[in-house]
Amino acid sequence: MLTFYCDHQSAHAPLRELNNGEWMDFAESPARLASIHASIGMGEAPKDHGMAPIEAVHDSEYLAFLKSAHDEWLAAGRDGDAIGYAFPVRGRRKLSLDRIDAKLGAFGFDAASPISAGTWEAAYWSAQSAVSALESVADGQARQAFALCRPPGHHAGRDYFGGYCYMNNAAIVARAACNRGLGPVAILDVDYHHGNGTQDIFYEDADVFFASIHADPAGDYPYFWGHADERGQGEGEGTTSNQPLPRGTTWTGYEAALDRALEAIGGFGARFLVVSYGADTFEKDPISHFRLTTPDMERIGARIAQARLASVVVMEGGYRIDALGHNVAAFLSGFEL
Amino acid sequence: MLTFYCDHQSAHAPLRELNNGEWMDFAESPARLASIHASIGMGEAPKDHGMAPIEAVHDSEYLAFLKSAHDEWLAAGRDGDAIGYAFPVRGRRKLSLDRIDAKLGAFGFDAASPISAGTWEAAYWSAQSAVSALESVADGQARQAFALCRPPGHHAGRDYFGGYCYMNNAAIVARAACNRGLGPVAILDVDYHHGNGTQDIFYEDADVFFASIHADPAGDYPYFWGHADERGQGEGEGTTSNQPLPRGTTWTGYEAALDRALEAIGGFGARFLVVSYGADTFEKDPISHFRLTTPDMERIGARIAQARLASVVVMEGGYRIDALGHNVAAFLSGFEL
Repeated sequence: MLTFYCDHQSAHAPLRELNNGEWMDFAESPARLASIHASIGMGEAPKDHGMAPIEAVHDSEYLAFLKSAHDEWLAAGRDGDAIGYAFPVRGRRKLSLDRIDAKLGAFGFDAASPISAGTWEAAYWSAQSAVSALESVADGQARQAFALCRPPGHHAGRDYFGGYCYMNNAAIVARAACNRGLGPVAILDVDYHHGNGTQDIFYEDADVFFASIHADPAGDYPYFWGHADERGQGEGEGTTSNQPLPRGTTWTGYEAALDRALEAIGGFGARFLVVSYGADTFEKDPISHFRLTTPDMERIGARIAQARLASVVVMEGGYRIDALGHNVAAFLSGFEL
Repeated sequence: MLTFYCDHQSAHAPLRELNNGEWMDFAESPARLASIHASIGMGEAPKDHGMAPIEAVHDSEYLAFLKSAHDEWLAAGRDGDAIGYAFPVRGRRKLSLDRIDAKLGAFGFDAASPISAGTWEAAYWSAQSAVSALESVADGQARQAFALCRPPGHHAGRDYFGGYCYMNNAAIVARAACNRGLGPVAILDVDYHHGNGTQDIFYEDADVFFASIHADPAGDYPYFWGHADERGQGEGEGTTSNQPLPRGTTWTGYEAALDRALEAIGGFGARFLVVSYGADTFEKDPISHFRLTTPDMERIGARIAQARLASVVVMEGGYRIDALGHNVAAFLSGFEL
């Protein structure tokens, strides 16, 4: 499958994160890329489409913060990765604050997503890979394309980062697809974790349908989003569909959820599909708890392909590095029309 | 001065916190107590006034969480201190979530305030010391009393913890003083950091005036509260008074702010005063940036004493351990009528 990727995406390389009470090695490491390359090759270099498609999704103030955050961190006399530790508890008003730690807390929602010296570069080019994949489909070069995005994107909202995500690649593709007249557009998120950023971006938007299948957030990250009763609001009422599944879910339960999600997407009348693909539904993923196998990855791809929609797949999570490439390759082989 | 303290308050002993990007030794350590004891003695043991005065300030759901949090942490297969890492970014709705990490994020606002095995015990008895100090004044045993509270309290809100604080001792005293008919009650917070929890608890309350002098939160913790335009709302409109001061503030600037705060408290007609005293305005405090000296601590005490109000002082912060006892003793000697 036509794949987009470039080495800039390795520039994001934080060392440590706070997760489940441990100050641990950063899980979303550049080593994930080598595993995927070994299975599917390097891919095409993306073109530089500039800031416009990114600015169509993210607030300019947030992007300015993201671009300068690590420099501000160094200017504050720190070294290493910038990481927040204090967060505006439930609904404090928006404030313009000087201190980098305050900004990290105000624009972030966890202490698991540091900003390193190369974060902007990597996130920028991850987004360019996503836009390039969209352009290849929009131009008729292919019916399907794969953006090997890293860092991933689906936890990043219009004006926040978190969950290893800084720019929302799936949302950037969906918005650009609308702008290219390819809509109605649907996003199907099959990462283990709920795509809270994507949901938030389109929560009041009738133009983009968001369907997600994920671990029940009562027990799994990102906790505060992705519950079954979140269905969109305002003009977007009914255009968000969440299917939280229990830990231990196998193919049987997963397939049924996939059928329902694709039925909803069909009911919306989608003509273009963005897939947020995470390989962390894999049974041996170190931070996740579904029980899908590598052959199940192919089944997911094949089932989605039955919708026969023009599509862009963007890479999200997947942390079992020695199996990651095999799982991505299996998904893409099932998905390929 | 009549002082209340008991050894249960040492039971809270987390090991590490995330602060300014560093996974560092926990600053609000039990060693602070030894420094204070060496200067002012051990104090009286508090009586156990039970949960009623605590429940008069904190939500029952929050207290249930706080009491069981460390057990839930252990039950989740973890060891060490319970610490949150994911937080509900700006205004997510309230949810009932199973997972301890979700609860820690939902009830906490930083990754600097772990819950250890002894946190509940220490916070409970810290609050009992505060209530016992209030009772000694209410009963006419003294005009002034000092609650050697540790852990401190002023960053804890009705339903949240953070900033090394779990139960808001100052708010518990103020509410109990109102209930004993000692009002109108004012709280004067002279810790280096804004007392955001105290402010939140009384923000819409006309019965308790809250005045705080602190480092400008644009550049200092807790960042998201304590700005000059926060003046209370609803029935509490005008009963909150914030005076953010720049880093480097010396006695001259501090005294002027203190005069204004006491004038406002006088204007409110306060008959009873709660002082949230932090020694972290000290010039050599390791995490703070005012330039007050030990003699200035005595001046702060003496200036507040000029109001000649029945008073309870509750201990808040102060992290320069080798000077902490001297600074507390200096403040109390100035304050003593």
